[in-house]
Amino acid sequence: MIDKLIENIKKKQAPVMVGLDPTMKLVPEHIKQKAFAEYGETLKGAAEAIWMYNKGIVDAVAELIPAVKPQIAMYEQFGVEGLVAFHKTVEYCKQKDLVVVGDIKRGDIGSTSDAYAVGHLGQVQVGNTMCRGFGEDFVTVNPYLGSDGVKPFIEVCKQEKKGMFVLVKTSNPSSGEFQDRLVLPEGCTDASKARPLYEVVGEKVAQWGADHMGAEYSYIGAVVGATYPEMGKVLREIMPKAYILVPAYGAQGGKGADLVHFFNKDGLGAIISSSRGIIGAYQQEKYAQYGPLNYADAARAAVIDMREDIAQALA
Amino acid sequence: MIDKLIENIKKKQAPVMVGLDPTMKLVPEHIKQKAFAEYGETLKGAAEAIWMYNKGIVDAVAELIPAVKPQIAMYEQFGVEGLVAFHKTVEYCKQKDLVVVGDIKRGDIGSTSDAYAVGHLGQVQVGNTMCRGFGEDFVTVNPYLGSDGVKPFIEVCKQEKKGMFVLVKTSNPSSGEFQDRLVLPEGCTDASKARPLYEVVGEKVAQWGADHMGAEYSYIGAVVGATYPEMGKVLREIMPKAYILVPAYGAQGGKGADLVHFFNKDGLGAIISSSRGIIGAYQQEKYAQYGPLNYADAARAAVIDMREDIAQALA
Repeated sequence: MIDKLIENIKKKQAPVMVGLDPTMKLVPEHIKQKAFAEYGETLKGAAEAIWMYNKGIVDAVAELIPAVKPQIAMYEQFGVEGLVAFHKTVEYCKQKDLVVVGDIKRGDIGSTSDAYAVGHLGQVQVGNTMCRGFGEDFVTVNPYLGSDGVKPFIEVCKQEKKGMFVLVKTSNPSSGEFQDRLVLPEGCTDASKARPLYEVVGEKVAQWGADHMGAEYSYIGAVVGATYPEMGKVLREIMPKAYILVPAYGAQGGKGADLVHFFNKDGLGAIISSSRGIIGAYQQEKYAQYGPLNYADAARAAVIDMREDIAQALA
Repeated sequence: MIDKLIENIKKKQAPVMVGLDPTMKLVPEHIKQKAFAEYGETLKGAAEAIWMYNKGIVDAVAELIPAVKPQIAMYEQFGVEGLVAFHKTVEYCKQKDLVVVGDIKRGDIGSTSDAYAVGHLGQVQVGNTMCRGFGEDFVTVNPYLGSDGVKPFIEVCKQEKKGMFVLVKTSNPSSGEFQDRLVLPEGCTDASKARPLYEVVGEKVAQWGADHMGAEYSYIGAVVGATYPEMGKVLREIMPKAYILVPAYGAQGGKGADLVHFFNKDGLGAIISSSRGIIGAYQQEKYAQYGPLNYADAARAAVIDMREDIAQALA
């Protein structure tokens, strides 16, 4: 699937993905009214609204982008009905030949991580039948539990030819609280040798990835926030064969010029994600002329601008 | 909700919870056959099977225990249908006056953690209506993203009078890979002052919890695996007011005698969880006489033995 992702990036000439992270505040009134008229102000009504909203955006931007990244929390907030909308969104994007990265940030002890991996990337055995749960192409994984929480995901990726991105340095303001802490190398008492935890995790990602390669890159990638470009530069070197998923372009503050060092010299190795900056574009001054009715066209215009910003930075 | 949990523990005289972590291998044949006859070997068939299996266990053990801990991954592996079974299980356990700890190990950037918190503990606004998603009483939270990934859960707990357990030291073999790494105090270059990451996280839990107290204990608790009793002893002192959820009793290797130091002198402060050791008891030699048809009675017997083991250790 990493090869498919790279192929899609080359074909669309755009190392970008759109985060499908719907909230009730982002969904235009006309969509909400229609959904509530049918299902009431219920979880089902909300789920219908976010699904219709997503569909409009995907229809408008699919030809411009290689991949999407639905954030499952934004669906899970609406309970089971929200997850129905998540699943529909995954299916629909796959039909549109988009690579789907489930931003699920799961991670647990071995047998439990296996259940997550099976549910999102693989197949679960029911009697003598193999069944597929959510069916994303990639997922994001939290490494806090160590190798035996990560390896079940790797195994399923291997079997199913899928991929994953391990959280290394997240985009949020307090990510440094634990991730930046200086840790001593094992068995070492020389404080000058201490390095930030995110580098230690990055090295693990490189190790895990070395034996799990696509044609050019590993299918074990990493998440490094656009908001930390200097750290991205270091991590790029620590993990030369890992694809880096770079969230937080746009609304969270990352800009094209900050992103150059996340890429390798081949122009590959990173994919930049923007969520609210795209899907909520119609609410921004810059794209306000589209209005809520044409929210999907506003999203399309924002994708075009984002592609251009990144292309210029990489040129 | 921490007060309700403690009240339930006192009433049932048992600081134990049962992990409702169903897998197809644990569900007895007669239940699977019935579910598959109705829904086929499908995700819906699997979901019906695990729900019926859970219901049997809950009916048999509810009067003996204060709380249950469904592990959401075991449901999520069956996709949306599995999560329907999760939700039914949560609802049913609440009807039985059990405190429900959703073992979800979520954690993300601020706005995303808020969506998880709302979906699992709180209410989401749909139009002018407030709707409830999954409705657990407590959840487990992954701290890797730092304070701003944790605080939205705290806010929702405060509003809704619910609670949470932050992963501090997990029970799995490789938990030490990152959690045990020695980290330098901020701004310090003296290697002799370095301490394991789990202690640093434990201190944060104590800080977060200090302003969020029930009558005796904070509603911000911690997860510390039964498999690491020595670390539990240290963490008990670092977090005197945090309730400690101690998984991995039984199948993963923890024993009653290992658990004494997780408790405070008041006999409170910890709750021990067992999953497979209880719900899969009928598959163990010790309880084999019950047979698969009486799997729930086997679970009940295993709960009684677990209560006794812990009571003796604490005596």
